Amino acid sequence: MRKMISILVRNHPGVLSHVAGLFTRRGYNIESIAAGVTEKPDVTRITIVVSGDEVVLEQVTKQLRKLIDVIKIYDLKYSESVTRELVLLTIFVPRDKRQEVVATVNAFGATVVDIGEKTMTMEFVGNERRVNTVIEALSGFKVKEFARTGFVALPLESQREREHTLI
Amino acid sequence: MRKMISILVRNHPGVLSHVAGLFTRRGYNIESIAAGVTEKPDVTRITIVVSGDEVVLEQVTKQLRKLIDVIKIYDLKYSESVTRELVLLTIFVPRDKRQEVVATVNAFGATVVDIGEKTMTMEFVGNERRVNTVIEALSGFKVKEFARTGFVALPLESQREREHTLI
Repeated sequence: MRKMISILVRNHPGVLSHVAGLFTRRGYNIESIAAGVTEKPDVTRITIVVSGDEVVLEQVTKQLRKLIDVIKIYDLKYSESVTRELVLLTIFVPRDKRQEVVATVNAFGATVVDIGEKTMTMEFVGNERRVNTVIEALSGFKVKEFARTGFVALPLESQREREHTLI
Repeated sequence: MRKMISILVRNHPGVLSHVAGLFTRRGYNIESIAAGVTEKPDVTRITIVVSGDEVVLEQVTKQLRKLIDVIKIYDLKYSESVTRELVLLTIFVPRDKRQEVVATVNAFGATVVDIGEKTMTMEFVGNERRVNTVIEALSGFKVKEFARTGFVALPLESQREREHTLI
């Protein structure tokens, strides 16, 4: 079972490793984590994608609620959220293939951010399906470096009337 | 002193909280953290922006090197890297201000991803300066929700000849 959870926490040292530790100690696999401050400089939003047992997840959530620095926990359903990830990708591109790669990259709305002698670096943003499609389209090229932010998500306004908050 | 560090780790449970813990236990403030798997499914790249004392950072780096799951540590200098962050932002927008906001958002190359009765959600990507500029341009509107991924970065090809690796 795969879940996306958004947690608002107070910016105290250790809160991030504390939160991450709660998941991993219960055998939960963290697929991605993204954390950055919100509009309130003392509040950070942590978005975690985890997979594991649902009953265990409930136990983890209960423990999270007990942490003094945890302000709010959202259970973000994929169909009711805007879900996005940012990817930076450097691939080896022979000179005679540059044009082909630029065409592919443009077709997907990705952006070339650097071109070197042997490589090209591009950035692209999208939901999971889109990100995987772009990676697939470029899979014929050898990857030199690959950095992804992990997913962030916000509830869709049209779904606001429903209840997302777990606490 | 502010630093961006990219760490390649083996995907074992607990490695993320372990890495984050090393920074916070030494009093380092983690401004942002982004972690996602790389092209190798068993390897995750963690990008951390931290601020604190330089001597302490060297100690933390030494300790990181000793962790069996840490494969490589990169010290990413801002001027030698492509640095990007993704932001999702939901702001309250009165109906008669919609057009103004759409124009502002488009001018910055940001994308509107949801419009509700009272709010608009947008996504944008950029380096720190650009992200801050967009946020500043929209600062007249009340923020409902704000999610940022934290920075990811890759070395610029033109800077490859230099040494980025700390281990």
